[in-house]
Amino acid sequence: MKKILVTLPLEPEHKEQLLSAGQGCEMCFRPVGEVDGEDIAWADILLGNVPAGMIGGAPNLEWVQLGSSGADAYVQPGVLHPRTKLTNATGAYSQAVAEHALAATMMLQKNLHLYRDNQLAARWEESGYVTSIADASVAVIGLGEIGLHYARMTKALGAYVMGVKRRPGSCPECVDELFLMDGLDEVLRRADVVFTVLPETPATHHLFTTERFEIMKDSAIFINCGRGGAVAEDVLYAALSTGKIAAASIDVAEREPLPADSPLWALSNLFITPHVSGDFHLRQTHDRVVDILSENLRRYLVGEELKNAVDFQSGYRK
Amino acid sequence: MKKILVTLPLEPEHKEQLLSAGQGCEMCFRPVGEVDGEDIAWADILLGNVPAGMIGGAPNLEWVQLGSSGADAYVQPGVLHPRTKLTNATGAYSQAVAEHALAATMMLQKNLHLYRDNQLAARWEESGYVTSIADASVAVIGLGEIGLHYARMTKALGAYVMGVKRRPGSCPECVDELFLMDGLDEVLRRADVVFTVLPETPATHHLFTTERFEIMKDSAIFINCGRGGAVAEDVLYAALSTGKIAAASIDVAEREPLPADSPLWALSNLFITPHVSGDFHLRQTHDRVVDILSENLRRYLVGEELKNAVDFQSGYRK
Repeated sequence: MKKILVTLPLEPEHKEQLLSAGQGCEMCFRPVGEVDGEDIAWADILLGNVPAGMIGGAPNLEWVQLGSSGADAYVQPGVLHPRTKLTNATGAYSQAVAEHALAATMMLQKNLHLYRDNQLAARWEESGYVTSIADASVAVIGLGEIGLHYARMTKALGAYVMGVKRRPGSCPECVDELFLMDGLDEVLRRADVVFTVLPETPATHHLFTTERFEIMKDSAIFINCGRGGAVAEDVLYAALSTGKIAAASIDVAEREPLPADSPLWALSNLFITPHVSGDFHLRQTHDRVVDILSENLRRYLVGEELKNAVDFQSGYRK
Repeated sequence: MKKILVTLPLEPEHKEQLLSAGQGCEMCFRPVGEVDGEDIAWADILLGNVPAGMIGGAPNLEWVQLGSSGADAYVQPGVLHPRTKLTNATGAYSQAVAEHALAATMMLQKNLHLYRDNQLAARWEESGYVTSIADASVAVIGLGEIGLHYARMTKALGAYVMGVKRRPGSCPECVDELFLMDGLDEVLRRADVVFTVLPETPATHHLFTTERFEIMKDSAIFINCGRGGAVAEDVLYAALSTGKIAAASIDVAEREPLPADSPLWALSNLFITPHVSGDFHLRQTHDRVVDILSENLRRYLVGEELKNAVDFQSGYRK
């Protein structure tokens, strides 16, 4: 009888769904804040996230199914025992993150962040020129499910979509032009909007250097909903405070939470959200994560191959 | 030789375009702020807007071609001599206004206005549940070119679109369900997003009453990019401050500019822009307005029927 520790936050109907998928197992539902080392040592299976440092190579753990899409903390040496399987919830977040990114893109294009600032001072004042998604060249850096969802939406609104991915493959229908990472600089030169949704890996760390902001258009809008490590805080600050690019929106920061004394907060052409785009704030996301966990639990118990296995080298889904 | 007064703001290439369309005419280019009664008395044709009160039934004016879509001020008794033709620039603004409205819709759905407030206080804090355009029922009240553009975009993003129009007609492809004005209340009951883009007429004045906000969902988002008179300031304030609806975005107000002491400014669930969605802030709009003026000038001079003639009864394009 498998022992399953569930730390994923659940609505009542989600709990029913998991109990039904795990019939015959011993299931312990515990909020992540109340989990201790004993719980983890007890479990064969972990459904949901716990702080990676608490796992410490627990030898009994057969399988960790994350509730998140990002798996970077769990692929570090010493976190998981070599025989422990790791799967993530890739796919569940694409609607929420891509829509957040599109909302932020259009907000910046239409100066709505500046109008909000004016509103707080009761100022009925115009804020200058705007741009259009219908006439924009959009670069999508990272063509996983989130990137593809964003590409589909912006293309449906009239944008010209350039996609950048790691591995050669056919060009998705929602992408007008496909590039590999060696084409990144060409794409950055041509883009009106740069949307990046890369995971944190050695290859993506500080990918957006001063030189790369240098080659972007002065009118470019930069949107980061991947990992904060993709751009150093001082590099982003310089690109925005000097007007090298027009505006940016970040849902992630190099330091999270972003300290209150960071100079980024005060940049009027930067819009900051606290790593919420992929959260369970959208009910549909929560439902999809539970669907993935339930389906993988069913598969595990009958010996079928798991969905969303994480590649320990890349931190991506295999 | 026709005498043409041009008050529309123009880029150099726009001026070339108009000069070419009006070859053989006497053209006077004058910013609206410098125009006086003599200029208007001199002109046979006015291209662009001047304050309606300055016209005073000028008997020489053969034709007024507005640069705006809204014509309400010019259809009032005594403004134009009965023989003066009136045309507007309907159509030029649909991309700009509809995109502004979509940006505002998604900003409110994703709480980006609240995150901007947090940012100004350097607060890394979440702001609760969000909703999705892909799963929304969207009501479009007023199916002119702006309404249709918004309908097409939201449908492309997955929304279910209910359209409300004045006159019977076939259902456009981008509308899932078509209603006449007598179906307005049913639509309001069912909508997650209510987008209104109605002109100011006796029939639309204070259309959105307390009773109509009452029947909307508590989770509804209300977007007004038409005319401020569609909803009384105190009615809108009550609906938002009591949480009767979730949030609203207005690009127009009953009093414009909205006075600094209006209680509307301080509502965190209201987003205010100063009547800019249809302005020339989007270069494509400006180009399209000049296209309409040039084409109509060409038509006028060869005696062809003008586009965009305004109906003095409804204030709409005929």
